[in-house]
Amino acid sequence: MDKLTTFTDSRGSLTLATVGKEIFFVPQRAYWVHHVPAGQTRGMHANRVVDEFVVCVSGAVSIEVQRPGEAGVTVRLSHPDQGLAIPAMAWSRQYDFTPNAVLLVLASGDYDRATYIDSYAEWLEACAQ
Amino acid sequence: MDKLTTFTDSRGSLTLATVGKEIFFVPQRAYWVHHVPAGQTRGMHANRVVDEFVVCVSGAVSIEVQRPGEAGVTVRLSHPDQGLAIPAMAWSRQYDFTPNAVLLVLASGDYDRATYIDSYAEWLEACAQ
Repeated sequence: MDKLTTFTDSRGSLTLATVGKEIFFVPQRAYWVHHVPAGQTRGMHANRVVDEFVVCVSGAVSIEVQRPGEAGVTVRLSHPDQGLAIPAMAWSRQYDFTPNAVLLVLASGDYDRATYIDSYAEWLEACAQ
Repeated sequence: MDKLTTFTDSRGSLTLATVGKEIFFVPQRAYWVHHVPAGQTRGMHANRVVDEFVVCVSGAVSIEVQRPGEAGVTVRLSHPDQGLAIPAMAWSRQYDFTPNAVLLVLASGDYDRATYIDSYAEWLEACAQ
Protein backbone atom coordinates (compact mmCIF):
# COMPACT_ATOMS: atom_id res chain seq x y z
CA MET A 1 0.00 0.00 0.00
CA ASP A 2 1.31 3.44 -0.95
CA LYS A 3 0.85 6.49 1.21
CA LEU A 4 0.01 9.19 -1.31
CA THR A 5 1.02 12.83 -1.10
CA THR A 6 -1.73 15.05 0.29
CA PHE A 7 -1.77 18.84 0.41
CA THR A 8 -4.07 20.25 3.08
CA ASP A 9 -4.89 23.88 3.79
CA SER A 10 -7.92 25.95 4.78
CA ARG A 11 -9.61 25.02 1.48
CA GLY A 12 -9.48 21.28 2.16
CA SER A 13 -7.27 18.42 1.01
CA LEU A 14 -5.89 17.34 -2.36
CA THR A 15 -4.36 13.88 -2.78
CA LEU A 16 -2.24 13.10 -5.81
CA ALA A 17 -1.03 10.11 -7.83
CA THR A 18 1.25 10.58 -10.83
CA VAL A 19 2.00 8.30 -13.77
CA GLY A 20 5.55 7.02 -13.52
CA LYS A 21 5.55 7.50 -9.76
CA GLU A 22 2.74 5.93 -7.74
CA ILE A 23 0.93 4.78 -10.90
CA PHE A 24 3.25 2.36 -12.69
CA PHE A 25 1.40 2.42 -16.04
CA VAL A 26 -0.39 4.88 -18.32
CA PRO A 27 -4.12 4.73 -17.54
CA GLN A 28 -6.39 3.92 -20.47
CA ARG A 29 -9.52 3.75 -18.38
CA ALA A 30 -10.85 4.97 -15.05
CA TYR A 31 -13.83 3.61 -13.19
CA TRP A 32 -15.31 4.00 -9.78
CA VAL A 33 -17.44 1.57 -7.82
CA HIS A 34 -20.16 3.12 -5.66
CA HIS A 35 -23.47 2.44 -3.91
CA VAL A 36 -22.43 -1.10 -3.01
CA PRO A 37 -25.08 -2.73 -0.80
CA ALA A 38 -23.98 -4.04 2.59
CA GLY A 39 -22.60 -7.57 2.51
CA GLN A 40 -21.69 -7.60 -1.17
CA THR A 41 -18.36 -8.88 -2.48
CA ARG A 42 -16.89 -7.72 -5.77
CA GLY A 43 -13.94 -8.85 -7.84
CA MET A 44 -13.22 -12.55 -7.25
CA HIS A 45 -11.15 -12.62 -10.41
CA ALA A 46 -7.77 -11.93 -11.95
CA ASN A 47 -7.01 -10.16 -15.20
CA ARG A 48 -4.32 -11.60 -17.44
CA VAL A 49 -3.12 -8.27 -18.91
CA VAL A 50 -4.54 -5.23 -17.13
CA ASP A 51 -2.73 -3.53 -14.25
CA GLU A 52 -4.79 -1.51 -11.80
CA PHE A 53 -4.23 1.13 -9.16
CA VAL A 54 -7.03 1.55 -6.62
CA VAL A 55 -7.93 4.18 -4.04
CA CYS A 56 -10.91 4.26 -1.72
CA VAL A 57 -11.61 7.99 -2.12
CA SER A 58 -14.68 7.92 0.18
CA GLY A 59 -15.58 5.56 3.01
CA ALA A 60 -13.75 2.26 3.42
CA VAL A 61 -13.41 -1.17 1.84
CA SER A 62 -11.39 -4.32 2.45
CA ILE A 63 -9.33 -5.67 -0.44
CA GLU A 64 -7.65 -9.04 -0.64
CA VAL A 65 -4.88 -9.32 -3.22
CA GLN A 66 -2.97 -12.48 -4.01
CA ARG A 67 -0.07 -12.31 -6.44
CA PRO A 68 1.00 -15.44 -8.28
CA GLY A 69 3.11 -17.65 -6.04
CA GLU A 70 2.48 -15.54 -2.96
CA ALA A 71 0.09 -15.66 -0.03
CA GLY A 72 -2.97 -13.43 -0.11
CA VAL A 73 -2.79 -10.09 1.67
CA THR A 74 -5.81 -8.21 2.95
CA VAL A 75 -5.77 -4.47 3.52
CA ARG A 76 -8.44 -2.08 4.73
CA LEU A 77 -8.50 1.05 2.59
CA SER A 78 -10.12 3.72 4.76
CA HIS A 79 -8.54 7.02 3.75
CA PRO A 80 -8.16 8.78 0.37
CA ASP A 81 -4.37 8.93 0.80
CA GLN A 82 -3.97 5.13 0.51
CA GLY A 83 -3.21 3.69 -2.92
CA LEU A 84 -2.96 0.01 -3.76
CA ALA A 85 -1.49 -1.61 -6.87
CA ILE A 86 -3.23 -4.68 -8.28
CA PRO A 87 -0.95 -5.92 -11.06
CA ALA A 88 -2.03 -8.14 -13.93
CA MET A 89 -2.50 -11.78 -12.88
CA ALA A 90 -3.17 -10.91 -9.23
CA TRP A 91 -6.32 -12.45 -7.79
CA SER A 92 -8.43 -9.93 -5.87
CA ARG A 93 -11.71 -9.37 -4.17
CA GLN A 94 -13.31 -6.38 -2.45
CA TYR A 95 -15.72 -6.63 0.45
CA ASP A 96 -17.04 -4.85 3.57
CA PHE A 97 -17.78 -1.66 1.68
CA THR A 98 -19.12 1.08 3.95
CA PRO A 99 -22.38 2.60 2.63
CA ASN A 100 -20.53 5.73 1.47
CA ALA A 101 -17.57 3.85 -0.06
CA VAL A 102 -16.29 4.92 -3.49
CA LEU A 103 -13.49 2.80 -4.92
CA LEU A 104 -11.57 4.54 -7.69
CA VAL A 105 -9.73 2.27 -10.13
CA LEU A 106 -7.23 3.38 -12.77
CA ALA A 107 -6.60 0.64 -15.32
CA SER A 108 -3.86 0.12 -17.92
CA GLY A 109 -6.14 -1.32 -20.59
CA ASP A 110 -9.62 -1.48 -21.97
CA TYR A 111 -12.24 -3.83 -20.63
CA ASP A 112 -12.12 -7.22 -22.32
CA ARG A 113 -14.17 -10.00 -20.75
CA ALA A 114 -11.88 -12.62 -22.36
CA THR A 115 -8.89 -11.47 -20.31
CA TYR A 116 -10.48 -12.35 -16.97
CA ILE A 117 -9.98 -15.51 -14.97
CA ASP A 118 -13.08 -16.04 -12.80
CA SER A 119 -12.26 -19.36 -11.19
CA TYR A 120 -9.72 -19.57 -8.38
CA ALA A 121 -8.80 -23.12 -9.42
CA GLU A 122 -8.14 -21.97 -12.99
CA TRP A 123 -6.12 -19.06 -11.66
CA LEU A 124 -3.89 -21.36 -9.60
CA GLU A 125 -3.39 -23.50 -12.69
CA ALA A 126 -2.55 -20.43 -14.83
CA CYS A 127 -0.03 -19.27 -12.20
CA ALA A 128 1.67 -22.67 -12.24
CA GLN A 129 2.25 -22.54 -15.99
CA MET B 1 -21.36 17.65 -19.15
CA ASP B 2 -21.09 14.00 -20.16
CA LYS B 3 -23.42 11.33 -18.85
CA LEU B 4 -21.08 8.42 -18.18
CA THR B 5 -21.90 4.76 -18.63
CA THR B 6 -22.89 3.05 -15.38
CA PHE B 7 -23.39 -0.66 -14.81
CA THR B 8 -25.64 -1.44 -11.84
CA ASP B 9 -26.53 -4.82 -10.43
CA SER B 10 -27.06 -6.39 -7.00
CA ARG B 11 -23.40 -5.75 -6.15
CA GLY B 12 -23.67 -1.99 -6.65
CA SER B 13 -22.73 0.43 -9.41
CA LEU B 14 -19.65 0.91 -11.58
CA THR B 15 -19.20 4.08 -13.62
CA LEU B 16 -16.64 4.22 -16.40
CA ALA B 17 -14.63 6.75 -18.39
CA THR B 18 -12.28 5.64 -21.16
CA VAL B 19 -9.35 7.40 -22.79
CA GLY B 20 -10.25 8.32 -26.37
CA LYS B 21 -13.94 8.33 -25.53
CA GLU B 22 -15.10 10.47 -22.60
CA ILE B 23 -11.52 11.37 -21.65
CA PHE B 24 -10.04 13.26 -24.61
CA PHE B 25 -6.39 12.96 -23.48
CA VAL B 26 -4.07 10.43 -21.88
CA PRO B 27 -3.97 11.09 -18.12
CA GLN B 28 -0.55 11.74 -16.64
CA ARG B 29 -1.87 12.52 -13.19
CA ALA B 30 -4.92 11.91 -11.05
CA TYR B 31 -5.91 13.83 -7.97
CA TRP B 32 -8.95 14.05 -5.78
CA VAL B 33 -10.10 16.94 -3.63
CA HIS B 34 -11.76 16.01 -0.36
CA HIS B 35 -12.66 17.28 3.12
CA VAL B 36 -13.38 20.76 1.81
CA PRO B 37 -14.77 22.94 4.62
CA ALA B 38 -18.15 24.60 4.07
CA GLY B 39 -18.00 27.90 2.25
CA GLN B 40 -14.63 27.35 0.60
CA THR B 41 -13.96 28.06 -3.07
CA ARG B 42 -11.19 26.32 -5.01
CA GLY B 43 -9.73 26.82 -8.45
CA MET B 44 -10.06 30.46 -9.53
CA HIS B 45 -7.44 29.90 -12.18
CA ALA B 46 -6.77 28.63 -15.68
CA ASN B 47 -3.97 26.36 -16.85
CA ARG B 48 -2.24 27.20 -20.11
CA VAL B 49 -1.45 23.60 -21.12
CA VAL B 50 -3.20 20.99 -18.96
CA ASP B 51 -6.56 19.49 -19.90
CA GLU B 52 -8.70 18.05 -17.12
CA PHE B 53 -11.68 15.76 -16.77
CA VAL B 54 -13.56 16.00 -13.49
CA VAL B 55 -16.14 13.84 -11.74
CA CYS B 56 -17.75 14.41 -8.35
CA VAL B 57 -17.62 10.76 -7.24
CA SER B 58 -19.15 11.47 -3.82
CA GLY B 59 -21.45 14.28 -2.69
CA ALA B 60 -21.89 17.37 -4.82
CA VAL B 61 -20.06 20.50 -5.93
CA SER B 62 -20.76 23.46 -8.19
CA ILE B 63 -18.26 24.19 -10.96
CA GLU B 64 -18.07 27.30 -13.08
CA VAL B 65 -16.16 26.92 -16.32
CA GLN B 66 -15.48 29.71 -18.78
CA ARG B 67 -13.77 28.91 -22.05
CA PRO B 68 -11.87 31.64 -23.91
CA GLY B 69 -14.26 33.88 -25.80
CA GLU B 70 -17.36 32.30 -24.27
CA ALA B 71 -19.67 33.08 -21.35
CA GLY B 72 -19.14 31.20 -18.09
CA VAL B 73 -21.28 28.13 -17.46
CA THR B 74 -22.06 26.76 -14.00
CA VAL B 75 -23.03 23.15 -13.43
CA ARG B 76 -23.87 21.27 -10.27
CA LEU B 77 -22.12 17.87 -10.24
CA SER B 78 -24.15 15.72 -7.87
CA HIS B 79 -23.87 12.16 -9.16
CA PRO B 80 -20.87 9.93 -9.98
CA ASP B 81 -22.14 9.45 -13.55
CA GLN B 82 -21.54 13.09 -14.50
CA GLY B 83 -18.22 13.97 -16.12
CA LEU B 84 -17.06 17.45 -17.05
CA ALA B 85 -14.19 18.48 -19.32
CA ILE B 86 -12.11 21.49 -18.34
CA PRO B 87 -9.79 22.08 -21.29
CA ALA B 88 -6.54 24.00 -21.14
CA MET B 89 -7.05 27.78 -20.94
CA ALA B 90 -10.53 27.48 -19.43
CA TRP B 91 -11.07 29.55 -16.29
CA SER B 92 -12.73 27.54 -13.53
CA ARG B 93 -13.72 27.59 -9.90
CA GLN B 94 -15.36 25.04 -7.61
CA TYR B 95 -17.62 25.94 -4.70
CA ASP B 96 -20.55 24.77 -2.56
CA PHE B 97 -18.90 21.43 -1.80
CA THR B 98 -21.10 19.20 0.34
CA PRO B 99 -19.27 17.88 3.44
CA ASN B 100 -18.88 14.43 1.81
CA ALA B 101 -17.84 15.75 -1.61
CA VAL B 102 -14.91 14.10 -3.40
CA LEU B 103 -13.93 15.70 -6.70
CA LEU B 104 -11.85 13.40 -8.90
CA VAL B 105 -9.64 15.10 -11.48
CA LEU B 106 -7.76 13.37 -14.31
CA ALA B 107 -5.13 15.67 -15.82
CA SER B 108 -3.17 15.54 -19.07
CA GLY B 109 0.09 16.85 -17.60
CA ASP B 110 2.21 17.18 -14.51
CA TYR B 111 1.75 19.97 -12.04
CA ASP B 112 3.74 23.06 -12.95
CA ARG B 113 2.97 26.23 -11.03
CA ALA B 114 4.32 28.32 -13.93
CA THR B 115 1.54 27.15 -16.26
CA TYR B 116 -1.26 28.65 -14.14
CA ILE B 117 -2.96 31.98 -14.64
CA ASP B 118 -4.33 33.13 -11.28
CA SER B 119 -5.71 36.53 -12.18
CA TYR B 120 -8.97 36.85 -14.09
CA ALA B 121 -7.77 40.10 -15.67
CA GLU B 122 -4.60 38.40 -16.88
CA TRP B 123 -6.64 35.50 -18.18
CA LEU B 124 -8.87 37.82 -20.23
CA GLU B 125 -5.74 39.44 -21.63
CA ALA B 126 -4.20 36.03 -22.48
CA CYS B 127 -7.43 34.97 -24.22
CA ALA B 128 -7.40 38.12 -26.33
CA GLN B 129 -3.92 37.45 -27.66
